[in-house]
Amino acid sequence: MTDKTSTAPIPLTVLGTGAMGAALVRAWLAAGHPVTVWNRTPARAEALAADGATVAASAAEAVAANRLVIACLLDDASVGEALDGTDLTGRDLVNLTTGTPAEGRARATWAQERGARFLAGGIMAVPPMIGGPGSGAYVFYSGSPALFEEHGTTLAVPAGTRYVGEDAGFAALYDVALLSAMSGMFAGIAHAFALIRPEDIAPKDFAPLLVSWLGAMSGSAHLAAEQLESGDYGKDVVSNLAMQVAGNATLLRTAEEQGVSAELLRPYAALLERWLAEGHGEEDTTGAVELLDLRRGAAG
Amino acid sequence: MTDKTSTAPIPLTVLGTGAMGAALVRAWLAAGHPVTVWNRTPARAEALAADGATVAASAAEAVAANRLVIACLLDDASVGEALDGTDLTGRDLVNLTTGTPAEGRARATWAQERGARFLAGGIMAVPPMIGGPGSGAYVFYSGSPALFEEHGTTLAVPAGTRYVGEDAGFAALYDVALLSAMSGMFAGIAHAFALIRPEDIAPKDFAPLLVSWLGAMSGSAHLAAEQLESGDYGKDVVSNLAMQVAGNATLLRTAEEQGVSAELLRPYAALLERWLAEGHGEEDTTGAVELLDLRRGAAG
Repeated sequence: MTDKTSTAPIPLTVLGTGAMGAALVRAWLAAGHPVTVWNRTPARAEALAADGATVAASAAEAVAANRLVIACLLDDASVGEALDGTDLTGRDLVNLTTGTPAEGRARATWAQERGARFLAGGIMAVPPMIGGPGSGAYVFYSGSPALFEEHGTTLAVPAGTRYVGEDAGFAALYDVALLSAMSGMFAGIAHAFALIRPEDIAPKDFAPLLVSWLGAMSGSAHLAAEQLESGDYGKDVVSNLAMQVAGNATLLRTAEEQGVSAELLRPYAALLERWLAEGHGEEDTTGAVELLDLRRGAAG
Repeated sequence: MTDKTSTAPIPLTVLGTGAMGAALVRAWLAAGHPVTVWNRTPARAEALAADGATVAASAAEAVAANRLVIACLLDDASVGEALDGTDLTGRDLVNLTTGTPAEGRARATWAQERGARFLAGGIMAVPPMIGGPGSGAYVFYSGSPALFEEHGTTLAVPAGTRYVGEDAGFAALYDVALLSAMSGMFAGIAHAFALIRPEDIAPKDFAPLLVSWLGAMSGSAHLAAEQLESGDYGKDVVSNLAMQVAGNATLLRTAEEQGVSAELLRPYAALLERWLAEGHGEEDTTGAVELLDLRRGAAG
């Protein structure tokens, strides 16, 4: 047996008890952590009292209750509003509120100026996945390495943890980058289902083909990463840009035939055409990423 | 030992020996099939003589040589041109040429009128994957079930086979639907890489996170399929449309912050906003597929 006191679950505060905040609170309570909660709409916080949470009358009172303070609010502005006038001196503030990288960086400076250590988190999960071991839920963390080292075990209770650097903007950047990629994939899936809808094809029979195809093809991101690091888009080319552009014509014609709007396909097809026009036909498509850089040419 | 004659590799003809056609020919030759080849540019066909192929002087001669005829040409028009004036009576024509569903259907009728059985194929692979067991390469087939039953074993030599129905347009439809979904995923991946490019983040460290995230999230296509079949988009909602639209705002703001064009993200974000405006905020995002139907409203 290890010394019980050294492993006792530490008390913590959670600001914001919406669907995600409530899921986090329940996970920590279930693991034996004393949790103080506050929510702008008190009824939502009070619902957690039955699970063992202590409900604070104000954000200031909640922050005063514990050194470790988790914020899971509507947006970054809500974090500023909730913590305005509270004493953050000596506090460890972990901000799991959705925001942009710049908001994460600004909030880190803001918190440090008020005497707190700061860690930003980007949650890669929906509320039902929180606290479920093996659910695959995890959180990107960035900011104070000392805070992460001290509280990493506690933070790992509701979901897996991935520390991605001292830059407090990185948690949001990784989060948004993955969600953006997912958004593209979902757009592609929506288009695929739209194509088969007019036909006698059961979506449930089609879905497994779609999932296994996308799973196999997502692996090309590894090659793209190598090409982006080397800047050599002509290395290990499997299907070159010129062939991809020719193939896109078939995708667009098929959409028209099936009576499906090609609005979700056109921008990427157009991007590849622009890159082809710049003379990259024999290379892989990866280099087209450069065209998305709005600062491109600004330096030239 | 089984009767050798009953399992002897049957002879076949391949029209078109570009990168894909040549890969198919080599796979069949390696499995012991006598192969007659023809290509519009003779040099490309002659290169396969060293591997054991018989080079025909014309498409008509190649078609006359064997009952099983595989076409793997540039586009559907090339198939018509190559076979114009050849005698297709009693032939089994398998068309692996890239095309649209409508082209597949029209070509099936055309072939049947000329006395041939017809099977359309959509190849889900790039040439280097052909003939490699375990490469995951496969071909969607649709059209004559009798042809597929008789030659399925031969067709399975270069790549796996998936027969998807008698409709000769289905092979292309399944093919294009999966490629369209992949195109969306690749657009998302391109955007994600563009977001991290300005930062001190190694693409090679980021790619594994991206691949595992997309793999996990692609599974939502199963739920989408169930919702599309039932027409009930409010069932088993994990993250509702209103939340997705709110989240998209963070994705778009982050792109702007990072100096990245949001051109690849905007159309899907706009589609979800339109669906939200139609009052589906509490449902899943799946129903937005209906907005892609260009015939929508035409019947109302």
